[in-house]
Amino acid sequence: MDIAEIGKFKLLNELVSGSDFSSKIKGRNDCMVTDISGDTYLLVSSVLMMEGIHFDLTYTPLKHLGFKSVVAVLSDICAMNGTPVQIKATVGVSSRFTVEDLRTLFDGIRTACTVYGVELSDADLTSSRTGVTIAMTGTGQVSKDRIVYRSGAQVNDLICVTGDLGSAYMGLKLLEREKRVLRGNDVARPQFEGYEYLLERELKPRLRIDVVKELQESDILPTSMIDLSDGLASDLKQICQSSGCGARIYLEKIPIASETFDLSDQFQIDPVVAALNGGDDYELLFTVPVSYYERVLHLGGIDVIGHMSPSSQGVALVTPDGAEITMQAQGWKE
Amino acid sequence: MDIAEIGKFKLLNELVSGSDFSSKIKGRNDCMVTDISGDTYLLVSSVLMMEGIHFDLTYTPLKHLGFKSVVAVLSDICAMNGTPVQIKATVGVSSRFTVEDLRTLFDGIRTACTVYGVELSDADLTSSRTGVTIAMTGTGQVSKDRIVYRSGAQVNDLICVTGDLGSAYMGLKLLEREKRVLRGNDVARPQFEGYEYLLERELKPRLRIDVVKELQESDILPTSMIDLSDGLASDLKQICQSSGCGARIYLEKIPIASETFDLSDQFQIDPVVAALNGGDDYELLFTVPVSYYERVLHLGGIDVIGHMSPSSQGVALVTPDGAEITMQAQGWKE
Repeated sequence: MDIAEIGKFKLLNELVSGSDFSSKIKGRNDCMVTDISGDTYLLVSSVLMMEGIHFDLTYTPLKHLGFKSVVAVLSDICAMNGTPVQIKATVGVSSRFTVEDLRTLFDGIRTACTVYGVELSDADLTSSRTGVTIAMTGTGQVSKDRIVYRSGAQVNDLICVTGDLGSAYMGLKLLEREKRVLRGNDVARPQFEGYEYLLERELKPRLRIDVVKELQESDILPTSMIDLSDGLASDLKQICQSSGCGARIYLEKIPIASETFDLSDQFQIDPVVAALNGGDDYELLFTVPVSYYERVLHLGGIDVIGHMSPSSQGVALVTPDGAEITMQAQGWKE
Repeated sequence: MDIAEIGKFKLLNELVSGSDFSSKIKGRNDCMVTDISGDTYLLVSSVLMMEGIHFDLTYTPLKHLGFKSVVAVLSDICAMNGTPVQIKATVGVSSRFTVEDLRTLFDGIRTACTVYGVELSDADLTSSRTGVTIAMTGTGQVSKDRIVYRSGAQVNDLICVTGDLGSAYMGLKLLEREKRVLRGNDVARPQFEGYEYLLERELKPRLRIDVVKELQESDILPTSMIDLSDGLASDLKQICQSSGCGARIYLEKIPIASETFDLSDQFQIDPVVAALNGGDDYELLFTVPVSYYERVLHLGGIDVIGHMSPSSQGVALVTPDGAEITMQAQGWKE
């Protein structure tokens, strides 16, 4: 049977819940959670990034790749309302990779560690038959009374997102177009003017640790949270499934940058599709009780895009004229 | 510059110590260590296993591969004298992989979790252009007064190993020979009789959590410890470098199984070379003060194979006639 037939997330639930310890597991989360003692949980996250799947070295500078891999693994810690502490980087490289390449990659990794105040605890290298593989492991901490799971959203809770969506996806589309245009052409220079923001979103995303701090300072505890790495449609579905709810997202409320609108027009892509199904934004999606509406808006840079609904109503996009469209997530028929 | 020119471990030290947090790092260790609170440290380990480098699916059953990947990631926790708690498995697969393949792989993962009493907390799947990639992350705990680093060995400390060495390597050689013999031959059956032990050592290694428990019960606290995943020569060198010591290993004291002797004779391989440079044994190498000699031998299944020496004397193998041979580690000119 092909993985797409059963669906990636259904399969994952089956593979994990077959464990003898399944009773302990309350739905899948972004991190492993360990209760050591006292009032703190330790969070452990991991990501696997493979050349040709998660990045294309034709247009991805190694320093940026290193930076992004740190953001990717720490984003899962922020998504549980935690503070990142350490990372370990394991890199598989084929023989075409030089010492200088590795130094450049780790330059980006160390830069991200400095920017976000985490320790690069350890690194490992291994051979690879083809291309570059990066396996990152991150640790973080969170007070027991501040941890946020995917599973706590309640019907009527407000659905909030940070930043804007779909811009990393449009940055990727731009890079892919220039790769096609420039193939075999040594003279032409890529045409990126006016779209620097989109490129930065794709190549050097920011970690929303600032939002985690602001939520704490404003005494806002989300009922559920996830980072937007797979796209709004897929990641919201995770919240809905874990929380046993449906959701209503208002199309005109989805934050989309003007550069995303401009370029999607050129590319004849619906910018809402980019926001729903484009990944790698690394923004945060979270829910709060309705009573937090004013407090959340007061933070700035956060949009309320909809609300949770009864599970029986499913996950839908509401158009300005009130029509409801069932939301589809892409990728291995999630 | 090629990685072999500078050497893998020298390069890793450079890549990690360039971090702003280098002052915190006391040499590289098997796990990330986090001090949460109270009297316990949390340990986090990770391994990256790639098809064609770390395993060959021609002769590695997927269930065994799943089991072994759990042992590999938890072995690093045992090597710091810790008790494993959880794992997360991330698997990259190409389109030739079916749902049934993944079920078989996870069957092995869950079996190992049950055998060693750890929780399979989470799993993730991703696409891969070629072959199978397994990224495992493990967590564990250790009392602050029981943690063992690589760096604590002192001159004159006894060097101890559990089990026997080189048998996984000989199992691998046997599998590789049968693969060559059977290529394109549908009638012949592989000739493994009498060597089942070696195959099990390679395909389904055991986790030496039993040794960690015995050390605690006997009130023995090693001064340093590492798991034998790269081979005695390479792993002992890690202990020596971290501890600022040299070492003397007595050739005739190295524990080698009779099956390893038999097969290495057939293959015209020196069994000592298999023990020194063969990896994947997942036994433990540790040091204790001389005064613990009787207590360690009393445990059973542990051999004292040498002692630590001043750093200026280097790492040497002592032959029965008293000659000293400088010990060489293989792989990327470690």
